[in-house]
Amino acid sequence: MKLYSFPGAPNPRRVLIFAAEKDLALEVVNVDLPGREIKQPEFLKKNPSGKIPVLELDDGRCIAESVAISRYLESLVPEPNLFGMDAYETAVIEMQHRFIEFELNMQIGFAWVHGPIVAKMGLIEPIEEMRRRGDAGARSYYKRLNRELETRDYVAGDRFTIADITALCMIDFASAMVNLKPDETLDALWRWHARVSERPAVANQAGMS
Amino acid sequence: MKLYSFPGAPNPRRVLIFAAEKDLALEVVNVDLPGREIKQPEFLKKNPSGKIPVLELDDGRCIAESVAISRYLESLVPEPNLFGMDAYETAVIEMQHRFIEFELNMQIGFAWVHGPIVAKMGLIEPIEEMRRRGDAGARSYYKRLNRELETRDYVAGDRFTIADITALCMIDFASAMVNLKPDETLDALWRWHARVSERPAVANQAGMS
Repeated sequence: MKLYSFPGAPNPRRVLIFAAEKDLALEVVNVDLPGREIKQPEFLKKNPSGKIPVLELDDGRCIAESVAISRYLESLVPEPNLFGMDAYETAVIEMQHRFIEFELNMQIGFAWVHGPIVAKMGLIEPIEEMRRRGDAGARSYYKRLNRELETRDYVAGDRFTIADITALCMIDFASAMVNLKPDETLDALWRWHARVSERPAVANQAGMS
Repeated sequence: MKLYSFPGAPNPRRVLIFAAEKDLALEVVNVDLPGREIKQPEFLKKNPSGKIPVLELDDGRCIAESVAISRYLESLVPEPNLFGMDAYETAVIEMQHRFIEFELNMQIGFAWVHGPIVAKMGLIEPIEEMRRRGDAGARSYYKRLNRELETRDYVAGDRFTIADITALCMIDFASAMVNLKPDETLDALWRWHARVSERPAVANQAGMS
């Protein structure tokens, strides 16, 4: 299986960590992201949304979206379980994962899309007030996450799951690229960050720095 | 099991349709949405994000987020299957569902949040340019969806799945509340809309109008 990726990009990194946790080797194909390869007709056949990551199976079928790819890998290699063991745990992991995606990641996304780096790429006309709201929203969510991590060791409960992978990749991206490093006073968040970052599957799949 | 809901609201409607497809009866508790009950401490214990729907189990444990609740119901009542039968189909449904959530729903969300109704509620200061971009983004996605529905009968393939429920509820909400009814020329989209809307589980769980 081939994974279309780009070094350090947060969403491909989610899949690379997920696969490494499963001890599953993927053939990584790095796309020409600056050259906008992913918006060209050939790539749009693989993913009509024009984004990475994309997993290409040996028969040529493609799966886009990091979570869809991860769920496919979970079916192929069920252990270690990262999506939930029973009905209730599966639902809680999905809920916590969605909180991260729709509340934290969305705010980081606003700060990134309306920030100076994307503006320099000339892709969209930034709206400074959206950047400011995204920045404030992400910082507010960091405080909520810190409070929650005072009561449990991982994002979705007492064990490592896909929700930790998503949160870590976005926080590392926000720290490196969006000027949104969590405040040093958020002790529980940083203890969690160290706990997750020292896992071999995570340490071997570095983000941007 | 109790479902905290509000009549016609799109995200609770997703769960109500999902449960009806499973022929599963939920006790519906309508919250005082205008009175902001969901932002009060008592409700935040059920869902720290302060949103509906929330499913309360008979032992008092709560699950928030429509997709997390739906996945829980799928575990309880596996048939008819709405999330996928094997590894590949499950991944494709997740991918198509995420396209709808992150590309269509997000644009509709921008048009709604920065539009006149939310402005009148005084919850946020609207940014007219975001409303305009959301409007254009949603209309552009409608065209993509129409093209895709020329090649298949349902959002994620040849059968009805959770991706259809999500798309229908958001398009109905956008039509009724955000001035974003899909253009009448989008034949394949409207044929799909009729096909899905005439299902008993959907027809019995009306949206806003």
